[in-house]
Amino acid sequence: MPYPEWTKGVHHDGSAVFVSNPLPALNETVEIKLRVPADAPIHHVFIRTEPDGEQAFTHMPETSRDEVCAWYTGALYMRNRRMVYRFKIMTDNGAFFYTAMGISRADGPDFYDFKLLADFESPSWLPGTVFYQIFPERFHNGDPSLTPPPGQKFNHPPQGVFESQVLDWDADPIEFAEGGTVDFFGGDLPGIEQKLDYLMDLGVNALYLNPIFTSQTNHKYNISDFYSVDPHFGGNAALISLSEKLHANRLRYVLDITPNHIGHTSAWFMDAQANPDALTSDYFIFYEHPHSYEAWFGVQTLPKLDYGSESLLDVMYRDDDAVMKHWLKPPYNADGWRLDVWNMVGRRGPDDYQHMVGRETRKAVKSTNAEAYVFGESFYDDTGSLQGDELDALMNYQGFTFPVERWLAGHDVNAWNKTPPAYVDTVKLSAEAAVEQMQRYIAAVPWAVAQIQFNLLGSHDTPRIMSIVDGDEALAKLAAVLLFTFPGVPSIYYGDEIGMFGWREPDNRRGMIWDESRWNIGVRELYQQLIQMKRTHEALQNGGFEVLHAEGAALAYLRESETERIIVLAHRGGEDAHSIDIPLTHAGIPRSTTFNGLLSETTYIVEDGTLPFSVGSSAAFDILHAAK
Amino acid sequence: MPYPEWTKGVHHDGSAVFVSNPLPALNETVEIKLRVPADAPIHHVFIRTEPDGEQAFTHMPETSRDEVCAWYTGALYMRNRRMVYRFKIMTDNGAFFYTAMGISRADGPDFYDFKLLADFESPSWLPGTVFYQIFPERFHNGDPSLTPPPGQKFNHPPQGVFESQVLDWDADPIEFAEGGTVDFFGGDLPGIEQKLDYLMDLGVNALYLNPIFTSQTNHKYNISDFYSVDPHFGGNAALISLSEKLHANRLRYVLDITPNHIGHTSAWFMDAQANPDALTSDYFIFYEHPHSYEAWFGVQTLPKLDYGSESLLDVMYRDDDAVMKHWLKPPYNADGWRLDVWNMVGRRGPDDYQHMVGRETRKAVKSTNAEAYVFGESFYDDTGSLQGDELDALMNYQGFTFPVERWLAGHDVNAWNKTPPAYVDTVKLSAEAAVEQMQRYIAAVPWAVAQIQFNLLGSHDTPRIMSIVDGDEALAKLAAVLLFTFPGVPSIYYGDEIGMFGWREPDNRRGMIWDESRWNIGVRELYQQLIQMKRTHEALQNGGFEVLHAEGAALAYLRESETERIIVLAHRGGEDAHSIDIPLTHAGIPRSTTFNGLLSETTYIVEDGTLPFSVGSSAAFDILHAAK
Repeated sequence: MPYPEWTKGVHHDGSAVFVSNPLPALNETVEIKLRVPADAPIHHVFIRTEPDGEQAFTHMPETSRDEVCAWYTGALYMRNRRMVYRFKIMTDNGAFFYTAMGISRADGPDFYDFKLLADFESPSWLPGTVFYQIFPERFHNGDPSLTPPPGQKFNHPPQGVFESQVLDWDADPIEFAEGGTVDFFGGDLPGIEQKLDYLMDLGVNALYLNPIFTSQTNHKYNISDFYSVDPHFGGNAALISLSEKLHANRLRYVLDITPNHIGHTSAWFMDAQANPDALTSDYFIFYEHPHSYEAWFGVQTLPKLDYGSESLLDVMYRDDDAVMKHWLKPPYNADGWRLDVWNMVGRRGPDDYQHMVGRETRKAVKSTNAEAYVFGESFYDDTGSLQGDELDALMNYQGFTFPVERWLAGHDVNAWNKTPPAYVDTVKLSAEAAVEQMQRYIAAVPWAVAQIQFNLLGSHDTPRIMSIVDGDEALAKLAAVLLFTFPGVPSIYYGDEIGMFGWREPDNRRGMIWDESRWNIGVRELYQQLIQMKRTHEALQNGGFEVLHAEGAALAYLRESETERIIVLAHRGGEDAHSIDIPLTHAGIPRSTTFNGLLSETTYIVEDGTLPFSVGSSAAFDILHAAK
Repeated sequence: MPYPEWTKGVHHDGSAVFVSNPLPALNETVEIKLRVPADAPIHHVFIRTEPDGEQAFTHMPETSRDEVCAWYTGALYMRNRRMVYRFKIMTDNGAFFYTAMGISRADGPDFYDFKLLADFESPSWLPGTVFYQIFPERFHNGDPSLTPPPGQKFNHPPQGVFESQVLDWDADPIEFAEGGTVDFFGGDLPGIEQKLDYLMDLGVNALYLNPIFTSQTNHKYNISDFYSVDPHFGGNAALISLSEKLHANRLRYVLDITPNHIGHTSAWFMDAQANPDALTSDYFIFYEHPHSYEAWFGVQTLPKLDYGSESLLDVMYRDDDAVMKHWLKPPYNADGWRLDVWNMVGRRGPDDYQHMVGRETRKAVKSTNAEAYVFGESFYDDTGSLQGDELDALMNYQGFTFPVERWLAGHDVNAWNKTPPAYVDTVKLSAEAAVEQMQRYIAAVPWAVAQIQFNLLGSHDTPRIMSIVDGDEALAKLAAVLLFTFPGVPSIYYGDEIGMFGWREPDNRRGMIWDESRWNIGVRELYQQLIQMKRTHEALQNGGFEVLHAEGAALAYLRESETERIIVLAHRGGEDAHSIDIPLTHAGIPRSTTFNGLLSETTYIVEDGTLPFSVGSSAAFDILHAAK
């Protein structure tokens, strides 16, 4: 038996419209609000929390009411660092629990309850921030003298020895198995610094740099020294110079590190391999010294670090000049860390140190710079690390990228493999299912985390969005609209803003196109518009998130702050032309409201509690705005 | 858009029908099976796991097929102590994920994934065990000379001084506020020993005793010494004697302890209160010495223990003769622990030691007796303590008691309060919602835990089931049918088996009725039947669990082992007489199967893939059996 219609319009999220202080201190009392449709036959509403693990109910009186909705308000005392709460709504037809996954008569575990954090050190600069991800070797060659010489020999056991090559900027990157990732284009840190005008013209205000520490390869994920910038990128001096320029222009930057492993050419590993009694021997797990050891996916160039070793903990994050602290301090002043393969860190067989590493890493980072942003890579579910005491965020593949790509293009994880495995799903997801996945990942974490998740349409590890949508410009644009309007911090993979194509690695790591005649100007202009929108609209920075409509090819959602409402309309096309009535009254939007299109000249007037959205064979989208 | 009909028949659980070894060792490879309806348009099935945090897929070939269903089989390697897994089912209409909460096109967090534990020390005696909970002061007076004298004065700050009273066995217990829980009936351990024949005749084979340690009150939750049995219960000697008798007759017993707090008359607390430098001072949290301190719900007779104190950890579970070890060893040989208010243990404001206490308690208990059963009290969600490294189980109020009582009688938590609060739900839950709640709590924990959850229809903390159903004998019997057929370990609260009534405390703690003329013989005979059924049927001990039908007043589910199928039919009544067709083909039951009623003479023949169930105004139930 389906629940009554009014239950669909019950809404709360962690934004300022519903929570008087989304970032409260311990022992603070916060005001919590619930919005329901005006016709909901409710006689009482309670907040249900669990201070110190024991259930507690707080009555929420009705505090206001208009033609479309009623509001209930109650107090939540922040007794613990992480307060879970849900609502119990009493009606003549029984009680309904309302959690971040919606309405249910059934009780259940707290996993999808709303969660409010106390004393959460959230970087205050994130809400208006747009990241730009740079793979430094492929962005711009700022100093040709730095480029690694060709013909150098590199031993990558067990594949063998590879010779470095230097390619033309517009060449095809060489397949890993063939080139050993020692094919170089010449990009470097001075190159980034020289393109600062380009970045500022685009409008981004933060960079995420793939690894820049000393390493033999072009991707530099096999780091040989966590304490030095690669000389071919310009060395430490180039980073200091870049950091100063960025900060002088109010841009931030985040570095990439591999807490899971280090390169086999690192002194740490070479010492351990040469001598079982070396100081760094217990950083690694040797099955048979010196050639059999635990490594990332068994790749011998990437020996795995063992967080069972106290001395490793010291050098990684406990010491005053530990790696995780070193680069956040002067003269580098990095604004945060991206943690490579976070999902695997500290995990091996019966040992699982991941959450310990997460907690201690957070302490090290925030004690060095409380404003630093620390987020992890995970293609899977690592919401366990996002409960306030470990990472600030994850690369939001699961909660954003994948549902968007499955919905728009039927593009599943690993579809990019040379031979896509049989477990790859090629059938487009419905908007209902995409939204279900998005909502699960919002619901699994505190709102303060959901709104600083690192959102992306692709990276150095995935195909580019333009390739995923097979060159359909309207779909690529629609994807960008979602990126900049979904809760979280958007990041652009270099070149996506000019419509670059790129399939699986290394095709997705081509040289950045600087020849403007090859740019997709339409895509670029939209990115510029969207970046400015994100940087200037409160509702896109800190606003709530409420799905208004999700059905098949169509999706509409509301972002709402205390001063404005923004509605995002999205349709993936592929249908005959028709108009969809997007329902609005449930979202508390007054009947008289007039919305103006931010990407169109259209004026949308709310009539009968709905808003018309014209859709058809091509992807369609708009972003509508109304002041409150 | 609803999912296709065939998806409803997809089934897996952690039982031996679907998992070759439900209790595997680390590094073992386990065979995993999935059953689907024969008409499911599937072209591939995969197991999806996360060894060391990284996604891995294993193809499951189709391994058998009959007229109603098809089976897919694959291997799961136990690389970690807790393996999460789900299924990815590939069809022409896209991929479906199947988790313990069912089918979805959307991906999501692992929370409701299936979970298999490696090296899980599950007490091997639990599957055939039926517990009987005894509140010792009210069960039987075996030695009147032990009964506390009347007129003793007890100071219970801040309420004041109470005088002990000795009441007739059949008297009304005195309200707490009035009598201060020092009204005594005279029950003791010799009394339990003397009633061993009664217990064995009933058929139970394990006892859960409410606290028996030295304490001033009748409930003994304000313990003054964790190391001695109350002299009024017969002291340590009586426990040794009882333990020997029980074990000689193949009954086990579990003790009750309060890890959250200790009595204010304990030497631990009195020393700390007398002297801020006492050895036990840091066991407690004084806000202002000596009279302001943290206590359970602020009740000053129950000062809270501080697990931030290393010396407390030593005495509670680290030392060789720590409390949690002491009573499991000779001469007491208790078979386990029930941990009082587990949900609050170690939690206070920003400090949360609960999971540490859980992990260390498990180690202490299992290292003393690997066969000991350790379960906690929680009225809420403490599934976080049930992931294999803390408790074996919880008192399963949330996953069994509450959904059953809300479904049968619209009886919500706290409905028993003197003035039921406005957040109490009095509208009966539908079977769909009840099943959703049950399934969520099964899905949130490993199957090995779900099947040893401590199930109950009531306890010393809740009204008795006969009062909850307002004396409706058929409903009380139906509740018992569910208790003994639901996955888990059933526990009978003393007297429920003879139909005793009892509302809120202390009415639920009346003297056990020994006058057989006052017994409800029909209820007692059913309990005896059900106990024997649980003790002899493999499907009720270790069988899987699959809901066949849940709609409004009707519920039907299957318990299935490798040798038999048991179907439970349940209807809460209140409807005009009619017959419900329970669908069976989705559960892989062949069309020709004949079931025999275990509680009736009826023979049920599966026709057209369904089974008829006659229901009407009274509660109806049966338990059907078919050998495989």
